[in-house]
Order: sequence, then structure tokens, then C-alpha cells
Amino acid sequence: MPQSPLTVAELSEAELLTRIFPRLELNAVHSAAVLLGPGDDAAIVAVPDGRTVISIDTQVQDQDFRLQWNNGYRTTGYDVGWKAAAQNLSDINAMGATATTLVVSLTMPADTPVEWIEDLADGLAAAIGKLGAGSCSVAGGDLGRGGELSVTVAVLGTLSGGQPVLRSGATAGDTLAIAGKAGCAAAGLALLESNHPVASLAPELRLFLDLQCRPEPPLDAGPGARTSGATAMMDISDGLVRDGTRLAVASNVVLDLDPGKLKQLAASLRPAAALLGADPLAWVLGGGEDHGLLATFPADIQLPPGFTGIGSVQARGSNEAAGVKIAGRPADSVGWDHFAD
Amino acid sequence: MPQSPLTVAELSEAELLTRIFPRLELNAVHSAAVLLGPGDDAAIVAVPDGRTVISIDTQVQDQDFRLQWNNGYRTTGYDVGWKAAAQNLSDINAMGATATTLVVSLTMPADTPVEWIEDLADGLAAAIGKLGAGSCSVAGGDLGRGGELSVTVAVLGTLSGGQPVLRSGATAGDTLAIAGKAGCAAAGLALLESNHPVASLAPELRLFLDLQCRPEPPLDAGPGARTSGATAMMDISDGLVRDGTRLAVASNVVLDLDPGKLKQLAASLRPAAALLGADPLAWVLGGGEDHGLLATFPADIQLPPGFTGIGSVQARGSNEAAGVKIAGRPADSVGWDHFAD
Repeated sequence: MPQSPLTVAELSEAELLTRIFPRLELNAVHSAAVLLGPGDDAAIVAVPDGRTVISIDTQVQDQDFRLQWNNGYRTTGYDVGWKAAAQNLSDINAMGATATTLVVSLTMPADTPVEWIEDLADGLAAAIGKLGAGSCSVAGGDLGRGGELSVTVAVLGTLSGGQPVLRSGATAGDTLAIAGKAGCAAAGLALLESNHPVASLAPELRLFLDLQCRPEPPLDAGPGARTSGATAMMDISDGLVRDGTRLAVASNVVLDLDPGKLKQLAASLRPAAALLGADPLAWVLGGGEDHGLLATFPADIQLPPGFTGIGSVQARGSNEAAGVKIAGRPADSVGWDHFAD
Repeated sequence: MPQSPLTVAELSEAELLTRIFPRLELNAVHSAAVLLGPGDDAAIVAVPDGRTVISIDTQVQDQDFRLQWNNGYRTTGYDVGWKAAAQNLSDINAMGATATTLVVSLTMPADTPVEWIEDLADGLAAAIGKLGAGSCSVAGGDLGRGGELSVTVAVLGTLSGGQPVLRSGATAGDTLAIAGKAGCAAAGLALLESNHPVASLAPELRLFLDLQCRPEPPLDAGPGARTSGATAMMDISDGLVRDGTRLAVASNVVLDLDPGKLKQLAASLRPAAALLGADPLAWVLGGGEDHGLLATFPADIQLPPGFTGIGSVQARGSNEAAGVKIAGRPADSVGWDHFAD
């Protein structure tokens, strides 16, 4: 008879912590940044720059992830840990900074399997390591009970003496560029919500599902953009058009997207779009959660590694609102399928 | 006909933020610490000390607070905001540090009244101001949906060039002392869970209920203890005996509590205990959530303002575990009512 799995209700907080810490320690012990780790009321981390970049973000079950998707895929603890780390690391990346420290608060229903939480810790550690945030440590955290699974991560980062790249610095004449994936996580979401089970998916389609569950923000690109002279930057978490509009409004400019470049971005999404009868360009323009970077650069500089030009920054016309256009027409009035093949 | 209240589902995130920011801005605009506030992917705060103390803590509906208590009291947004701030400020206080920065992540069911969230922001700001954390600012945050209300605060603090006070530094011969309230929040919890409605409570009893909902950690006492030479410190969030045991284990010593001092601490709780037929000493020894400080000091120094001696630190006898005693007998075997009048 199969034993029912050990749940978090059967362990004390201290017992659960002894299962989690070793999975996160790999980073902490190699980090000079953690001056005092878990065990006291707070941790202490080094901030040699004299300033710290800081952000906080929560993921909640049934809002930011489903434990069980329509196509049968079950979200793993590893997925949730990875995504929680990736989203927060991306916010630091979007400022042109490098993450140094995470603290994690985990809320768990009593019947959560301990193994699922261990898996979550593994996913956190793996994202930090594999996404290239090797100098980032988990300095501490908090465990508690709740009716639904929820993971909050607060993240610190360093600008290493440099200036942050804000949303507000784009100037007419700048080149608009993107780094990282665009539309892949949206394609993955559509697959998860479809009737196509994971086992039926070809590897090139399964990839999109993986990118929805474990996004891959381009963590080298943010600091690279900063040192290359990017004038504005943000991460794309709600979609190219929505986030682009935010950057355009903050900078009081118009971003004009090049339809040819958009089609190039959509090309790799076509097999998934064909399977689902979807428009790949809609994923490129509307899909979030890839945590790519949208940035603007002076037109006369070479784009740094990882960035591809996708348009230009234009001055706002008289009586024209700041926002996003595609080949000169407002993106929200165009209908994205207009550009689909 | 009364109109139903505006809910968070009826506002965009941006609209909700415009209602929250002004309530928190009072601190931010007066703070030199916030170099970049909300509006980008992350905030930037000054850390002139070159190190930051950091902690994170979550409060969840029906776990850390009830929206409606047995005695009819309805927890306000103000209560929840206050308590979230107070708990986190206390973790910084417990290191001997001063809080500089909060970031807040708020998870809300769709039917949460907007007014409740505005009230929460007011409670956060009020706790920061009234508890004496005037140099602390809310630098940023995150809003999201969930099935239950949940507030996570991450807090940064500064040691102003000094050394932190850890749990592990107590030495035999030290004086054991406490700052802040002890047992008041536990008395308040017992009143909330009783059948005595708020309106029936005399002011001196209502006070305990208020201290459960809006605890008052002694935020001057932590840095004061540090500069006075405290050898060990922590905040009392789970009760004097449980938290004292943690400090004793970390320091590998025995803490011996003075029953006479405990009775003095219990004296103010007697009216509430009489009403409920409870043991006031059990509240002093077992009650958490007052967020008082437990600290040890060399015996030859004068205790800093706010601290009262409640016992002494002793070496562990052979075959004796580190832990808490009362007048030489293990606290967990004594039965707290033994000392009750």
C-alpha cells in the first residue's frame, strides 16, 4: 500500500528549515555578501556600493500558477521556486543591476507535501545558478501556514557604482531593442490550457511549456545594456505592447515597432500556433512572463550582446498620446492579426 | 439603499496604487534613504553603512489574524497594516538596528473593499510613525490577487556602523532583561476569542485587545541595548519561554527567571485574567506577539532605558540542556500556574 506523503503539518518549522537550508546553502556559503545568515531575527548582507536596488513580488496558487493545468500538467514545486526567483531576478536585471540577495517568505497549506517544498527550494537554487545569478544568495526567509500556496521573494541588487536605467529616459531617435524571449511563455500558457497532453508534444513545443513554467530572463543583458549606454529599460512581464506603453508614457515618447522584426520574433512560435490555431504575432505582442528586456539605445551605438532592434523611438506628435505604434499605426487599434501571415 | 462598497476588482492596479501611494508618501518624501521610489521595476535605497540588516515576514488571513473574532470584533485594514509593519520593524529592532526601508506585497481577494486596503496603507504608515521608526520609508511594493488576504513585508535596517546583537552571545553571569510589553497581546487574544464584546470591555481591558491587533514593539530599546553592550538579544514573538529557550540554546546557557519579577509583569494583566478565569502568569510566560525584547547584559552595567531585569544567565550544568528555568526549575516542567497567586 503506498504511504501518503509526509506533509508540512507533520514537521515543526525548525524541522522543515533543516530540510530547506542545505538546498539553498550552496549559494550562501560561496557568497561574501551574506555577513549573517539564518538563525537570528534578521540576516545581514554586504552592500559595498552604498545603495541597494530592491523589489518584492508574490506568486499565488491559482492566480500566478495552477497546480494542475487543463492539459494534465502538474506544476512542480521546482517550477514555482524557479519562477519566483526568475521573476524577481528579472526586476533587478531591468534596472541594469545584478542581484545579490534574496529573502523568501513561503505560505503553505497544512497538507502540502514536504517533498514539494524541498522541490521548491531546489527550483529556487537552480534558477539562481542556471540563469547566471551566481553571486546571489538566499539570506533568509519565513515559513507560515495559509489556505493557499504563496511565495513572496524580496530581492536586492547592486549597480556596482553605476547609474540605474529607468523607464523614463527614452529619447526620439533612439533604437528600440529587445533581449530574451518574446511570446514563448504565452505559447506555453496556451498549450497548458489546451487539450494537448505534455506527452503528445514534440520537443520544440514542449520547450514553450517549459518556458512558461520556468522562464529564462536574460540576466547578463541588463547590466550589459546599462554599461552600453541604454537610455531606458524595463522587463516585459505583461506583454510587449502593454509594457512598451508604460515605457513610452514614462518617457513621453512614441515607440514604433517594425512589423518585419515582429514577424521574425514570431517565426519560432509558428509550430505551436499551427497546432492551436493561434496567431503567433499575438503572443509576441501580448504575451508576458518571458521576462525579456525592452530597452532603448542611442541610434549611433552598437547594440550590446543579446539585444535585437525591433523599432525606434519617435517624438510624440501634437495631440498624440505617448504609446506604442506598429509601422506608424497605434498598436491597440491595429488588431494584431493584421500582421499575421 | 446603501451602495455596496467599491472593491479592488473594480480598479486597475494603477488606479489602486494612486490611492495607496499618497498614504505612504509622507515617509518617503522626508527620507533621504529612498533614492528611487515606485514607478520602475525596482526601487533604490541608500545604504551608507555598507551593510544592511534584512528580514521578511508574512501575515495571512485566518492564520495570523481573523477578519471576524469570536467576540464580534472585526479586524480592520488599519490593524493588519499596523501589525505587518510592527512585526517587521521588531525583527530589525531585535538585532540592535534601526529600520530604514519597507517593501510591501499585498495579496487581495477580488471582493476586498478598496477602503479596507486604503485603511491598511494608513495603518502601515501610522505604525512606522507612531512606533518611532521615523527614518523608515516604504520604497515600493507589489499588488496581486489571491483567494485570501495576505501581506508580506520585507524590511531593511541599519546598524549605523555598529555590530549586531545576536542570540548566541549570552554568557553565564549576565543579567537577563526584557523591554516592552509581556502577556498583553495574549490577554487581548483571549478577549477576542471570548464571549465579551468590545463594547462591554472597560478601557483597561480594551487596551489588551488593541495591543493584540496593533502591537507596540519598543523600537528605541534595540539600538539602545546594542550601544549599551547587550551580549545577546531577540524579539519575543512566540512567548518568553519558547523564545528564551531559543536564545539559551543559541548561547548554550541556562536562563533563570525570577518568579518575583514575573509576578510584577503579570500584575497589570490581572483584571483581564479575572474576567476570563485565566492565569496571568501563563500569558507572561507563553504569550507572544507583544514583540518585546529579551536581552542579556553584563552584570556590572546599568540596564539601558526601557529594560527591566527578570533573571540571570547561568552556565549549563553537566548533563543539563540549555534552556529556561524559573527559580532553578525547568520552566516546561514547572507548570506556570504554580507561580500564580
